[in-house]
Amino acid sequence: MSSLTAGGKLAGRILDALAEATTDAPGITRVAYGAGEHFAHDLVRKEAERLGAVARVDAAGNLYLTLKGCDPDLPAIVIGSHLDSVAHGGNFDGVAGIAAGLAVMAELVGQGIRLSRDLIVLATRAEEAVWFPLSYPGSQAVLGLLEPQALEARRSDSGRTLAEHMREEGFDPDAVRRGMPGIDAGRIAAFIEVHIEQGPRLIAAEAPVGIVTGIAGGFRYVDAKCLGAYAHSGAEPRFARHDSVLGFADLIAGLEKEWDALEREGREATITFGRVQSDPAQHGGSRVLGELGFTLDARSAEAAVLDRIEKRLHDILAEAGSKRGVTFELGPRFTWEPATMSPALIAGLDRAATELQMRAPHVPSGAGHDAAMFAGAGIPTAMLFVRNEKGSHNPHEAMEIADLDQAIRLLFRFVTDFDNHLDQP
Amino acid sequence: MSSLTAGGKLAGRILDALAEATTDAPGITRVAYGAGEHFAHDLVRKEAERLGAVARVDAAGNLYLTLKGCDPDLPAIVIGSHLDSVAHGGNFDGVAGIAAGLAVMAELVGQGIRLSRDLIVLATRAEEAVWFPLSYPGSQAVLGLLEPQALEARRSDSGRTLAEHMREEGFDPDAVRRGMPGIDAGRIAAFIEVHIEQGPRLIAAEAPVGIVTGIAGGFRYVDAKCLGAYAHSGAEPRFARHDSVLGFADLIAGLEKEWDALEREGREATITFGRVQSDPAQHGGSRVLGELGFTLDARSAEAAVLDRIEKRLHDILAEAGSKRGVTFELGPRFTWEPATMSPALIAGLDRAATELQMRAPHVPSGAGHDAAMFAGAGIPTAMLFVRNEKGSHNPHEAMEIADLDQAIRLLFRFVTDFDNHLDQP
Repeated sequence: MSSLTAGGKLAGRILDALAEATTDAPGITRVAYGAGEHFAHDLVRKEAERLGAVARVDAAGNLYLTLKGCDPDLPAIVIGSHLDSVAHGGNFDGVAGIAAGLAVMAELVGQGIRLSRDLIVLATRAEEAVWFPLSYPGSQAVLGLLEPQALEARRSDSGRTLAEHMREEGFDPDAVRRGMPGIDAGRIAAFIEVHIEQGPRLIAAEAPVGIVTGIAGGFRYVDAKCLGAYAHSGAEPRFARHDSVLGFADLIAGLEKEWDALEREGREATITFGRVQSDPAQHGGSRVLGELGFTLDARSAEAAVLDRIEKRLHDILAEAGSKRGVTFELGPRFTWEPATMSPALIAGLDRAATELQMRAPHVPSGAGHDAAMFAGAGIPTAMLFVRNEKGSHNPHEAMEIADLDQAIRLLFRFVTDFDNHLDQP
Repeated sequence: MSSLTAGGKLAGRILDALAEATTDAPGITRVAYGAGEHFAHDLVRKEAERLGAVARVDAAGNLYLTLKGCDPDLPAIVIGSHLDSVAHGGNFDGVAGIAAGLAVMAELVGQGIRLSRDLIVLATRAEEAVWFPLSYPGSQAVLGLLEPQALEARRSDSGRTLAEHMREEGFDPDAVRRGMPGIDAGRIAAFIEVHIEQGPRLIAAEAPVGIVTGIAGGFRYVDAKCLGAYAHSGAEPRFARHDSVLGFADLIAGLEKEWDALEREGREATITFGRVQSDPAQHGGSRVLGELGFTLDARSAEAAVLDRIEKRLHDILAEAGSKRGVTFELGPRFTWEPATMSPALIAGLDRAATELQMRAPHVPSGAGHDAAMFAGAGIPTAMLFVRNEKGSHNPHEAMEIADLDQAIRLLFRFVTDFDNHLDQP
């Protein structure tokens, strides 16, 4: 790109300001319902108000920034994403989507274009499941779908409940509990999320932007354990051991074999152990470990593949348990459904890309996103990925503003053209 | 046992007093050169002085409790062990050996027996390698063999050096640095250590006491790492992953295969991962782990077996690294030599057991002990194991005083008979 759009420049300024304010070396931290997320909500609100948008906050703290359209009766286009981050994450996951939404708004205002319908930039809360063990509680609350017991989930760093954190930030968990939606689903013509890609597909394709075909579902055990018996490494003969490390190794090998089989059949999945931890109060060079904690995360766009992995998992645990003299405690199970993106919206984005002579390949999303919640509620939903090096959830996320600017151009074309081609809702 | 010896009762009181004073739930903690070890040294010193023994402390803080014999020219019998423990360990590891030595002393005094030679109960310092990454620094200092750089080793909890901790406790690290021994090796006729068994062999044999044939040597990597690349569990496709968990799993599988091969050849070894730890600032349910830390501990009574495991280890790391796109950093290597027990002393202990009609099977020691240091210095050395349930280095060590009393009877018989049969030194 020789030069950025005015919207792209605004997005860059927003991202820079957030990086500066929420640095937490290494990387940045914007805890859900914490100081970093709070700062980000304040900042994007001010920027949107400067553009003439009207700000509103729902009972859960989700922020709606509405640029009024000509016809108040038409359902809105919503461009949404989240403003929280993992601890010591990168600056772009989530925030880039809100920056892109504000950039589109800025382009509309700058070019004096008034859409027929409202354009809402929606900054959700608490998307990163590392804080609350929940699937997109902010987006669920947007739709009035958050289960009352979810408000009792505890934040991993503070140990306090989602309800307590909402109240502390000045929101109204009781209204959330009653299922009061932040916006009526029928008032959303399309939900579109721009997000950095968290894998290497766009880099491999040398494309700045990708159009997402679907979002994988998955299941996760966040507090699984292999339990054996602590013993002295030198003194405990092999026959007498109940080594939790070996039990865990059998689990890894068993699931890898299943993954191999799935790949041979051409079915996509990921299987990941994102935490492996012996007890610091117990472990040591001369211990046979009596306990090893771990997380297990399995994902696929196909529900049948997830079922198969889950079933195989239990067989493997039984085999490993019996072979190694250990037991497994999987702990709470956390699941999220696969989501399909709207073919009509994908077609609209394809058309916009063609008109702009922009390469925007179709890509799957292995990671979950707020968009999955809206798609699951029957709202026409689409996603754009922006090329990004070095993955996400780490300090090294490396999205180029020039690439985000391409997504902004595509999205701007898409929203200005929205009523010309789409026959929905 | 219907009743304990007077010595056995004394040993029980000493163990009870130590458990009460050094409880640190769960279990007990006696940090090397820390408060718990300090308390234990003071207590056993007082008990020995009450029996008429003379106390002396060397430059490193090792404690020599001498019951004078008739002939000051004869080299002494030394009954030694350590008084430190791991964090949240059991009450018997180390301490039981000193309690047994004092019990033998009490039996001699109580029965009015004066040995021809001095009997020294030697309470060493800092045997548990969890505190300083060193092999028996206390026993090394006894023999004037501690390398000057070992004094710069840092204690795992405080981060301060061995020299600083010695000085803080009122000892003289400069004299230790100069290689001043606490006792002349030529003045030791025999070094004997009583220790709880840390494995299940005596329980399986239904014997209260065992006579140790040899002490395994080993090597340990206390700060090894598998290094890959952090990524998002959903977004990073399998082909692009550098998953440190999978690299570690390959290492486990490779070493287990080698262990299988060794067992098929009838060669004894143990291979153990005593700590497995992802970075709490980086790990999480949705991470592909870019780093996994672990310890590796390999032991065998045969130096050739250790060499073979070490060599195979490096092949496995190269294979796993190339297959998984990861690298390994093994970090500091810590080794200790295998030690053979004196055949003459074993014969003497066998004879004493026969005379007492006590079953005392021969057993190997997979764990390292102070005795290995004395044997390595060419001093005739022997060990007795006392039956103990649930291993050691954990709060559940379960030695019966009645079993320790059997070791005391055996050792008493052995020392009173020492000059009748042995033709050494």
